[in-house]
Amino acid sequence: MREVGIAGVGHTKFGKWTEGTFVDMLSKAAVEALDDAGIRTVKGHGVDQVFVASMGSGMINRQSGVASALVDTLNLRPAMAETIENGPASGASAVKLGYMAIASGMCNCVLVVGGEMMRVVSGWEGTDFVATMLHPEAEYNYGLTLPAFAGMFTRLYMEKYGVTERDLSIVSVKNHENAVHNPVAHIHVVPSLYAIADDEDAHVINPYVAEPLRMYHVCPVSDGAAAVVLCAMDQADRFAKKPVKIAGIGQATDTHSVAEREVPTDLLAVRLAAQRAYDMAGLKPQDIDVAELHDAFQILEVAESEEVGFFEKGQGHIAARNGETRIGGKIPINTSGGLKAKGHPLGATGVSQIVELVRQLRGEAGGRQVQDAKTGLAVNFGGFGNNVVATILAREEE
Amino acid sequence: MREVGIAGVGHTKFGKWTEGTFVDMLSKAAVEALDDAGIRTVKGHGVDQVFVASMGSGMINRQSGVASALVDTLNLRPAMAETIENGPASGASAVKLGYMAIASGMCNCVLVVGGEMMRVVSGWEGTDFVATMLHPEAEYNYGLTLPAFAGMFTRLYMEKYGVTERDLSIVSVKNHENAVHNPVAHIHVVPSLYAIADDEDAHVINPYVAEPLRMYHVCPVSDGAAAVVLCAMDQADRFAKKPVKIAGIGQATDTHSVAEREVPTDLLAVRLAAQRAYDMAGLKPQDIDVAELHDAFQILEVAESEEVGFFEKGQGHIAARNGETRIGGKIPINTSGGLKAKGHPLGATGVSQIVELVRQLRGEAGGRQVQDAKTGLAVNFGGFGNNVVATILAREEE
Repeated sequence: MREVGIAGVGHTKFGKWTEGTFVDMLSKAAVEALDDAGIRTVKGHGVDQVFVASMGSGMINRQSGVASALVDTLNLRPAMAETIENGPASGASAVKLGYMAIASGMCNCVLVVGGEMMRVVSGWEGTDFVATMLHPEAEYNYGLTLPAFAGMFTRLYMEKYGVTERDLSIVSVKNHENAVHNPVAHIHVVPSLYAIADDEDAHVINPYVAEPLRMYHVCPVSDGAAAVVLCAMDQADRFAKKPVKIAGIGQATDTHSVAEREVPTDLLAVRLAAQRAYDMAGLKPQDIDVAELHDAFQILEVAESEEVGFFEKGQGHIAARNGETRIGGKIPINTSGGLKAKGHPLGATGVSQIVELVRQLRGEAGGRQVQDAKTGLAVNFGGFGNNVVATILAREEE
Repeated sequence: MREVGIAGVGHTKFGKWTEGTFVDMLSKAAVEALDDAGIRTVKGHGVDQVFVASMGSGMINRQSGVASALVDTLNLRPAMAETIENGPASGASAVKLGYMAIASGMCNCVLVVGGEMMRVVSGWEGTDFVATMLHPEAEYNYGLTLPAFAGMFTRLYMEKYGVTERDLSIVSVKNHENAVHNPVAHIHVVPSLYAIADDEDAHVINPYVAEPLRMYHVCPVSDGAAAVVLCAMDQADRFAKKPVKIAGIGQATDTHSVAEREVPTDLLAVRLAAQRAYDMAGLKPQDIDVAELHDAFQILEVAESEEVGFFEKGQGHIAARNGETRIGGKIPINTSGGLKAKGHPLGATGVSQIVELVRQLRGEAGGRQVQDAKTGLAVNFGGFGNNVVATILAREEE
């Protein structure tokens, strides 16, 4: 199969987008990625295909054909264009399709832009929008939401494996500390573990969102966009920087209705997606130097760190307690700040994870750099684990 | 590049879907296609990837992650799954991505299901939904709609090339006549040319929708789904029927804002998409035996028949007058009934066109069969021509 790499990355500051329209936001990330790749957005640009990843462009931004609009705005006509939706895993799905487009030989260069402008809806309305990814008859219409599921999942995890609220706060604080060094992160304020977990009044600033999940165990609502330029590795010379290779991609679906899962604390789609990605890359969990895991809720970082094989099942929170997932630890997780502190604009997240891994593998991650990182794993989690994409990047040896 | 074919097709009756949910509708078409391909929806099915094409699943059906839901409903877990959106060209886009998935070597068998349940919205609300594909700042927010654009386009075509309202009715009646022989078509009532064009009271049953476009020059609003099973041609033996080969796919984008086009009567994206498809297939317009063109408005069938090279620019309506696009004519167009009479459930349309071509190339088209059809061309038109996909199928010689 033809090899595919990432030649450029771009990323808006996650948070509240105030500089224009939804397409303007996508464009900003895209132009940064095209510039990073050394491609000018003029005739002869060589971009064959544009994929936009978004979950809510239609539902909350009332816009269809966004990918065509972006092609036109960027002056990339007549490039092909589609919008890709896979809930919160839309971003990694779009990268996967970019991979396929190039590996097939139909394209040489693909621009993938993930974005969500979701602060136009807020509070209950925003939670409801996100909940549209749940099973339409068995879950959504009974009022179930993602925080509700995550709360139940956390409770099961606590009972089965002894995870505590404090463990979730440990993961949260770590990610907030990493985000301080990431200029594009939404939140640059770091809560202390004492303040959100140990102080006798900790519950005041860290109230329950969906018991036992507290505010600091849940990602914020963010606007944002992230972009990558994918290229055929056999054309690497066309680009300004040495491309980072996509070594493996794995994806798997699980039951759409969470209640149908045999062991509700297992995330089978994460396990299988990661296994497929490892197999394709010819790598094992212990070969990974840095990982971005989908911590929309802190318990998911713990559970995913187990399902991808970094730790035994039930041991993820112990590893977090012991600092093994911090920068400098055994396997640094969410150096970007993760969804918790970098933010989680749904369609952007999967692309944003790849952007972070590219920065790490290029040695461009500044104060959050993992020393000599050569391989990175990203897990992008769709639905409540019903459609998961794992992606492995590898820096080729000089 | 690895060759890709179509091993199975399925199609719901277009019209008003009353048998259940949106996913139920997608499932019905999917199961028919899987059965047609000889694949049982149980373990060992071999489906690696599912693509759902839909424009309004989020906006009007308030559901995201539909592709994951479909995988689960069909018991195709852990197959990969994404939803693809490219306005009314979503269907052909999803087929293209299925092609890439197999050609890349990542997949051997891909299920593509296009569907739209759009009669849940009606009248102005439905027209507004469709209009979300227009330019969000330059068009949509000024109240422009697709029928409005088609009306203006028709007027320009009339002034420049001498097309008459009667010509549009000729195209319409032809498609309605074809639809009578298509069991899955929305409309099985055939208007006579006399009644909708020649009678002095014709305007009563054929009133203006957007002058000079009349009711019989515009497609209806339909629910419906269509499905195809794509396979690697090197695995053709796995399937019940001999796959029909996808010989060429071309796609092109044009300016998102129609007003920015140099010659507003030219559909450059159609021209380029078709050219790319011909080039890939190694075929010329005169090699095509049957075509499905995107006649959301009758003028588009005329214009597209010129842009794809069947007729000189400005001659399409003359050819229609002369019966050259009827079954038995030089190049039969819209044997299925076209969008006009078969219906136009947006996300389904591109897949439905492919289903019709497969039926034609297999010789299964009954009363609408084009004798010994070996090659077929489909044009799926996104936006007002801002993103167009052309697909060429070819029956391999025995």
